[in-house]
Parts: sequence; structure tokens; C-alpha cells
Amino acid sequence: MEYDTFEKNGPALLGLGAMGTALARAWLAAGHPPTVWNRTPGRAAPLAAEGARVAGTAAEAVAASDLVVVCLLDDASVGEVLAGVDLTGKDLVDLTTGTPAQARARARWAEERGARFLDGGIMAVPPMIGAPESGGYVLYSGSRALFEAHRDTLAVPAGTRYVGEDPALAALHDTALLSAMTGMFAGIAHAFALVRDEDVALQDFASLLAGWLTAMAPHVYSTADHLESGDYTKGVTSNLAMMVQGNATLLRTAEEQKVSAELLTPFMALMERRLADGHPDEDTTGVIDLLTR
Amino acid sequence: MEYDTFEKNGPALLGLGAMGTALARAWLAAGHPPTVWNRTPGRAAPLAAEGARVAGTAAEAVAASDLVVVCLLDDASVGEVLAGVDLTGKDLVDLTTGTPAQARARARWAEERGARFLDGGIMAVPPMIGAPESGGYVLYSGSRALFEAHRDTLAVPAGTRYVGEDPALAALHDTALLSAMTGMFAGIAHAFALVRDEDVALQDFASLLAGWLTAMAPHVYSTADHLESGDYTKGVTSNLAMMVQGNATLLRTAEEQKVSAELLTPFMALMERRLADGHPDEDTTGVIDLLTR
Ligand SMILES: NC(=O)c1ccc[n+]([C@@H]2O[C@H](COP(=O)([O-])OP(=O)(O)OC[C@H]3O[C@@H](n4cnc5c(N)ncnc54)[C@H](OP(=O)(O)O)[C@@H]3O)[C@@H](O)[C@H]2O)c1
Ligand SMILES: NC(=O)c1ccc[n+]([C@@H]2O[C@H](COP(=O)([O-])OP(=O)(O)OC[C@H]3O[C@@H](n4cnc5c(N)ncnc54)[C@H](OP(=O)(O)O)[C@@H]3O)[C@@H](O)[C@H]2O)c1
Repeated sequence: MEYDTFEKNGPALLGLGAMGTALARAWLAAGHPPTVWNRTPGRAAPLAAEGARVAGTAAEAVAASDLVVVCLLDDASVGEVLAGVDLTGKDLVDLTTGTPAQARARARWAEERGARFLDGGIMAVPPMIGAPESGGYVLYSGSRALFEAHRDTLAVPAGTRYVGEDPALAALHDTALLSAMTGMFAGIAHAFALVRDEDVALQDFASLLAGWLTAMAPHVYSTADHLESGDYTKGVTSNLAMMVQGNATLLRTAEEQKVSAELLTPFMALMERRLADGHPDEDTTGVIDLLTR
Repeated sequence: MEYDTFEKNGPALLGLGAMGTALARAWLAAGHPPTVWNRTPGRAAPLAAEGARVAGTAAEAVAASDLVVVCLLDDASVGEVLAGVDLTGKDLVDLTTGTPAQARARARWAEERGARFLDGGIMAVPPMIGAPESGGYVLYSGSRALFEAHRDTLAVPAGTRYVGEDPALAALHDTALLSAMTGMFAGIAHAFALVRDEDVALQDFASLLAGWLTAMAPHVYSTADHLESGDYTKGVTSNLAMMVQGNATLLRTAEEQKVSAELLTPFMALMERRLADGHPDEDTTGVIDLLTR
């Protein structure tokens, strides 16, 4: 690994919220002290004591390194903080959460200012940063050259997954994973609501549930396969006709247990619609077609 | 292992649909040929050729073994098939899918007829039966004495999980696991809808998604812990306030990608309601309180 002078000193890091502070500590621990800046200066003080260089302004921080990492509240704050700052020749890595379209627009904006741009989506919470065993990682998309040039520095806080040149792709993957998790958490909430007042040891139930969800997660590979081939019936063992019948048992159980089924019914309604459209032998892949307006 | 004469010959098995046939084959392969019966007699013929004894009536099948396994379409068909059949002294195992209340009622019904009763919920599809490496299993609840007496025979088709004396518990666990899976599948559908028309290799995306859902599934342990302690803020790293903010990004991305958010919005609405009720530092456990009418 070769670092130029600036990289030895770690990146410039704008934003010292919960996540920015965790990033700063990871680079400090790895011996790449960052140059940090935060709107509210007080948040930099503990990091200064640990060896970080503290810049008085965002422009001063940016001037201190060719690699500039921003981790702010939202895309609007990125625009505010970097307005009027000279980015010529800089490598800008944006770890602020945003939408795919925001990432695309921010990439154009950065290129117009003479910077290379890489967007990042952090699939970790702050305690997972600088802890490789936690399995947290950052999705990256945009300039591949930037990613390759700073790969080792970027790998310090968490694992890296480069998902493509289109700067929108990291945010797209990020939101897709979080959306899937939202659905899983909704299902988990319903499941616990069913059993919580019964004679069920909740930790034992959790163990069954974690095992079951883990065993069912690989369902995503056949979904990908179905979407690629256009044949949604290939290798289906639980077909839509059976699943829709099964839904009646799930709804009746919710009724018996006095649990609202509102978290399950929208998906069930789409399954029924797809079945009524004449697809009894498919699995649930066809529902995806119904979601695109 | 000791078997009495009847057990050597395997159980009586009523119902030779896709699942019943798979069960019959598993007992045949293990050297415990079952005595089988099916309403439509044609389905028994191939099994007879493989060594199963075929009964002409349900009563005749029941008379052939002290262990009687039923695997029919639904609870109503169990009532029809066993109406008027002498169950005195029999051990009745009901692998037909039903609700907790149906299992409880069927248990009373069986006891009134002098039989011990065990309800089962099959967490497997037919190809997983008789294939221990598939990880499929059957949840059992009801008579523990029955379960212990026939444990080895019951373990032939799939792994066994005894979840308690209340006969409702197997069906309750079964429906809870399937409900959670329904939520997960809804989330997966939304996730694929977001990426399917973009420059994304779907198998690579599936690999990220399977890894992510598997990594997030252990969330259920902290949910169980929160419900047990009543403190929903313990050890929370992503709190409700942050998650509700994050939801805005998910919804905006769905809008950009022209994907309906109908599978995510009910859970998001409950998260917002719980936040508005004054619980910014909790995780999503509080939503469970809102589901119980
Ligand atoms: N925390 C997580 O678990 C997590 C996980 C994945 C991704 N992320 C993402 O990481 C980013 C940062 O999250 P965080 O947890 O660090 O948030 P946070 O603790 O709320 O910190 C927000 C940061 O943004 C700054 N900021 C906000 N508005 C600003 C403005 N108009 N001008 C200048 N600075 C501004 C704040 O500065 P002040 O100190 O002056 O307020 C602070 O440094 C977010 O996009 C978040 O979605 C976080
Ligand atoms: N297949 C799976 O993936 C799966 C997974 C888990 C649990 N299960 C459960 O296992 C049970 C059986 O499922 P399956 O897949 O085998 O279903 P199936 O292939 O549809 O077979 C249904 C069976 O029930 C019989 N039946 C239906 N109504 C009847 C009546 N009124 N009187 C007598 N017999 C009647 C049918 O007999 P005929 O041949 O005469 O029609 C047939 O043997 C269901 O409760 C199901 O929920 C299935």
C-alpha cells in the first residue's frame, strides 16, 4: 500500500454526528488521522484530543486532503456545507444517506466543480464502524477510478461493496435493502403480536423465528432467477394457489388472537390479484409486476 | 428403539395429497410401511406398489395401528373423515394445517372419543420431507406422552419441535412463522421492484439481499428481550426517530422509481404513530402494542 502525504494524514471528514464521529475514530485507530470539521465545533474537541486535526471551516478541511468524505444529515446539508468551497481536483465521497436521484444530481454537481465523485450508502450503525467482525459495510457507486485509488482508506471503517459506475446505484441498493428489512420487521411485529400473550417462551420463539427467516431468505435467488427468465413458475414448490389458501388461515388466526392484520393484508391482496389474473402456478414473483405503477 | 407390532408396520396415514404422499414415502424408505387411505383411491396405488398397505376405508386404516396420522386439506375434512370412526385408545396426530382454536377444539373432540391428541404444523414443503438435510421440521403441541411414545416414528419424515401441552401452540407457532415470512416476502418484492429496471445484476443483488436479511433476522432476540422486560429502549442503536426519518428516503426513492409503496406504508404509519405517542428512543417493538386491538 502506498499513500501520498495527504493520505497518510487520513481524509478530510465533514460532519461529526454519531456516524461521522465513528468514522473519525476508525481512521484514528488505524493510524490515518483525519482532518475533521463540524458545524457545531464542540463535537470536534474529543477527537482533537485523540489526534485528529481540526479545521476551522469546511473549506480549510477540504484543502487539507485530496480525499474529502462528507457524512451529514441529508443531501441539502451537503449542498449548504460545500457551497463556495473549491473542489477542483478533489475526490469527493458522499456517505450522506439520500435517494438515487439525489446521488445522480450530486455527482453532476461535483463533476461541474472539477471533482471526482463517489456516493456511499452505509449498511451499518455507528457501533459497527471500525469493527470488521460486525459485518457492516458501505455500498459505493460512481467513479471507479476514485474507488480504486482510495480503496484501502475507504476499507478502514467498514467493508466495501462497489456496485457500479452509475452514482445512483449505491443509494438504490441501500434503500432496497432497507425496504426489504422494513417488510421483514413488519412481519416480525405481527408474529410477536400473535404469541406474546400466550404460554410461549419468547426467547425460544425468537430462536425459531430467526432460524425460519434465515432459512427462507434464500428465496431471493429464485426471485432473481424468475425475473431474469420471465418464467415465474420455474422450480416453484409453494404455488400462489396454495399460498392464497394459506393466507386464510393466517387471517383467521390473527382474528382469533385479536391481532390486526393490517401489516399482512396489502401483500395478500396483491397475491390474490395476481392469482385472479390467472397465475396459480407462480410463486410471489408476479406481485413485483403489480407494484410498478 | 423398541417398536410394538403395529409400529413396526408404520402408522396409519389418512390423506395422500402432495404432503401425505411425501410422508408415506418417508416411512416406506425408513422401513416402517404405513397403512394408507385416501378419499380418491387412485392416489394409493403407486404407494401400494412401493410396499404400503392400503385400507379400503378410513375406519379400516385406523384399526390397523395405534398411531393414526391425518394430513388432509383442512380441519373440516378431518371431522368428515373421522366421523363415526372408533378412536378409543388411539394416538391421533393431526398434521392438517389449521388455526390455534381449531386445534384446541379438535383436541377436545379427540379426547371425548378416548384418543390422545397431538397437533402438528409442517414447516416444510413435500420435497423436504424425508430429507433431513433440508432443515424442514414439524412443530408439535398437545399430549406430551403421545409425543414421547412415538417420537422416533414422528422423526422419520422431518425434524420435530415440541412446543407445549396446549394443543393450540403448534398452529400458533406455524402461523406466526408464516406471517413473519409473508412480511419478509413483501419487503423482498418491494426491493426487487426498485432495482429490476436498473443496471443491476439481479443475482448479485439477491446475494446482497439474502446476506442483509440474514444479518438483520437476529433482531428478533432483542424484540423478545424488550417484550419480556417491558423496556423497549434497551440496547437500541437505530431508534424510532431515526428510522422514521429514514422512511422518508425510502418513500421518496419508491416515488422516483415509480414503485408503489403500499407494502411498506402500513408499518411506517404505525412507526409514526408510536413516535408521536412519545417514544423516540425505542426500536420498532412498540408497534407490536399497536397491533393488538
Ligand atoms: N447513525 C446511523 O445509524 C446511520 C446509519 C447509516 C447511515 N447513516 C447516515 O449517516 C449520515 C449522518 O448520520 P448521523 O447518525 O451522524 O446523524 P446525526 O448524528 O444526526 O448528525 C448529523 C450531522 O449533520 C450535521 N448537519 C446537519 N445539518 C447541517 C447543515 N445544514 N449544515 C452543516 N452540518 C449539518 C450535524 O452538524 P451539527 O453537529 O452542527 O448539528 C451533524 O454533524 C446520515 O445521512 C445518516 O442517514 C447513519
Ligand atoms: N404441500 C405443502 O407444501 C404443505 C406444507 C405444509 C403444510 N401442508 C398442509 O398439509 C395438508 C395437506 O396438504 P397437501 O399439500 O397434501 O394438500 P393436497 O395435495 O391438496 O391434498 C389434500 C388431501 O386432502 C384430501 N381431502 C380434501 N378434502 C377432503 C374431504 N372432505 N374428505 C376426505 N379427504 C379430503 C384429499 O383427498 P382427495 O385425493 O380425495 O382429493 C387429499 O388427500 C394441508 O393442511 C396443508 O396445509 C402442506
